[in-house]
Amino acid sequence: MLAEIITIGDELLIGQVLDTNSGFIAKALTKIGVSVYQITSVQDDKTHILKAFKDAENHVDIVIITGGLGPTKDDITKKTIAEYFNDTLVLDESVLKNIKELWKKYVRQTLLQVNLDQAYVPSKSKVLMNTLGTAPGMWMEKNNKVFVSLPGVPYEMEALMENEVIPKIKEKFHCPFILHRTLLIYGLGESTLAARIEAWEDNLPKHIKLAYLPDLGRMRLRLSSVGFDETLVRLDVQQQIDAVLPLIQEAFFGFEDEDDSIENIIAKQLTKLGKTVATAESCTGGKIAERFTKNAGASSYFKGSVISYATQSKIDVLGVSKDAIDANSVVSAQVAEAMATHVQELFKTDYAIATTGNAGPTKGDSNEEVGTIYIAIATKNKVFSEKFMLGNHRVKVINKGANKAFEMLLKEILKN
Amino acid sequence: MLAEIITIGDELLIGQVLDTNSGFIAKALTKIGVSVYQITSVQDDKTHILKAFKDAENHVDIVIITGGLGPTKDDITKKTIAEYFNDTLVLDESVLKNIKELWKKYVRQTLLQVNLDQAYVPSKSKVLMNTLGTAPGMWMEKNNKVFVSLPGVPYEMEALMENEVIPKIKEKFHCPFILHRTLLIYGLGESTLAARIEAWEDNLPKHIKLAYLPDLGRMRLRLSSVGFDETLVRLDVQQQIDAVLPLIQEAFFGFEDEDDSIENIIAKQLTKLGKTVATAESCTGGKIAERFTKNAGASSYFKGSVISYATQSKIDVLGVSKDAIDANSVVSAQVAEAMATHVQELFKTDYAIATTGNAGPTKGDSNEEVGTIYIAIATKNKVFSEKFMLGNHRVKVINKGANKAFEMLLKEILKN
Repeated sequence: MLAEIITIGDELLIGQVLDTNSGFIAKALTKIGVSVYQITSVQDDKTHILKAFKDAENHVDIVIITGGLGPTKDDITKKTIAEYFNDTLVLDESVLKNIKELWKKYVRQTLLQVNLDQAYVPSKSKVLMNTLGTAPGMWMEKNNKVFVSLPGVPYEMEALMENEVIPKIKEKFHCPFILHRTLLIYGLGESTLAARIEAWEDNLPKHIKLAYLPDLGRMRLRLSSVGFDETLVRLDVQQQIDAVLPLIQEAFFGFEDEDDSIENIIAKQLTKLGKTVATAESCTGGKIAERFTKNAGASSYFKGSVISYATQSKIDVLGVSKDAIDANSVVSAQVAEAMATHVQELFKTDYAIATTGNAGPTKGDSNEEVGTIYIAIATKNKVFSEKFMLGNHRVKVINKGANKAFEMLLKEILKN
Repeated sequence: MLAEIITIGDELLIGQVLDTNSGFIAKALTKIGVSVYQITSVQDDKTHILKAFKDAENHVDIVIITGGLGPTKDDITKKTIAEYFNDTLVLDESVLKNIKELWKKYVRQTLLQVNLDQAYVPSKSKVLMNTLGTAPGMWMEKNNKVFVSLPGVPYEMEALMENEVIPKIKEKFHCPFILHRTLLIYGLGESTLAARIEAWEDNLPKHIKLAYLPDLGRMRLRLSSVGFDETLVRLDVQQQIDAVLPLIQEAFFGFEDEDDSIENIIAKQLTKLGKTVATAESCTGGKIAERFTKNAGASSYFKGSVISYATQSKIDVLGVSKDAIDANSVVSAQVAEAMATHVQELFKTDYAIATTGNAGPTKGDSNEEVGTIYIAIATKNKVFSEKFMLGNHRVKVINKGANKAFEMLLKEILKN
């Protein structure tokens, strides 16, 4: 079962808007056994869109299209789909009702004809009701191929995928089971890891695919397999995992389950243990707090943070002593550890993370080289820190710094 | 001048890794007058990659390829390119030297044969030296079409684009000038805006393209044009902007120049005025601080933040009175304003932003409906707040909340 994702919009092709929809759709399809053959982004251009539809129809069973369903003149997807299917647009009363209700509830501006026009859909389409917005999803079939058109607004598209598209695909097609299992590995580079497991990799059965995914200081090793018997597929992959684990034991950190970022693994551990954490961030500027609080339920283990970006605020807000800063530099193990200890006391938590460093591109209030960062972990009865050199790329230093901090904290939590 | 971007890697097609490279490359190409015709993501599969190369060659002048250049067995891009060009791989001494130097400087693990093998490149290729990593970029030509292969690691790819690919394209091709100007509009919905400017839009010359880009409570209106005379193109678009501005005056906020997110516009204003800001964030959880500090130079205007996620921390760290919380609920105008005032005093800044609300999915320490958020702005002599209902999608509430906060702050700064 193959699918292609087509995202439509000039904004994607000029790099003004990042296409996050494709990744979401790809993940959702993979989960139910549909392989994504290709992702294609094209301009708001009728000829090109028609060509993309034709190419996709030649290669796949399911085509998921997003974008171009808005009320304005540059939104041409619906008309182009009607043309591709030799169809005309007709008024759908249920969509019209939905538009009027949404307007009444949320919108203060006047309801215009262009908004009402969004209730027109191809006569052969099955409407997928969008309760979060005025552009309906549409499901079309042709020669046993399925075309689905969804709005480009991410949360509207996501709800339609989950509530309408996925159940309908499962109903129509007999999909196989696709399994991806990803091992999280810290402290081994890509080639060192590959050398270590070479004999195992050479003996992998052909139907199990292996991928190496380097990611800012950690490696992800992904095994993929597919089959109609879920139990057999799982057993088969598990045997290979059992064989590789002894080879990488000291570097293996766990599995990346769906959405299992390292902050989520920490969240689960802390929730399980009933423990709490706070952060004091300088060079990471709130990135660690933001990653904790992105997840629902964060308030049960994350108490808060002090972003002491300015040196003076490390003294005023966190209570780090001016002497410690003067004696050691603001980018130092001593300051990181003092920040961690003080924020842990301030928020009365079990654990605290602190970061201080230079993310660059220029040196800040210290003479340390750009990319230098000290990360400290405080618990109720100890504090320790580590120094990292994370290169000279600002965004990389911030993200890698956050990853390293999560890694140190997780190691500490797992000791209990 | 047309280009296609081909990103290679199973991780993109299963939704494990988000393709951010295409957006970066698309923006860089657009800037020098190269139109991106299509972005295509394909699996690590030789047949499919070869097909994608052929399709691209039929439609465009420049093909930019990323991914699949690592040292492990799933990295097949280099071999596939050699096959496509009927070429063989030969050792490049300069790349070998670069690999050895990188290893000596940054890597503690043993240098292996697979790492040295990365110095093999197609004999017909021109090497684009990657000083940040071991996989070199490669420039190939065939029938006056250019193929460029770049590593998938974003910061390595970005450096190669900026330092090697863009200058070489400018040298080889006579590119036109492409202008995109985007108007930032707040407080007018997509259809209301379209109705307001309909007569103007209908009279736009055919060669100027118009796009509506809704984005969490704001609209972006983009005018695009292309031509070989930069002055004429600019003048032409400016005339249309001059004609539309009077129609949307009260809602027009400025232009989105390259990378001009609202936090960057604020950064420029604050830097110009020599003013500073701090934040106190509850439901936005550090998102506002993180967006400020992502940008180089943030330390000159951003002093820091208190993420008072737990209610108790609003009392302990920020000094909000328990009575105010008990009397008004922790999600209230009074608490938001107290948070703003206190954090402004704590960090001794000119401005402060505070947020308190329920991002959901469940109610927290208050009875306010999910999606309710109060945002306060404090200056040295006043404080005010506004209430927003931002729906029931957690990530949307956080991001839209941050946008609203930036919007309120910018309005206040612009009063001076």
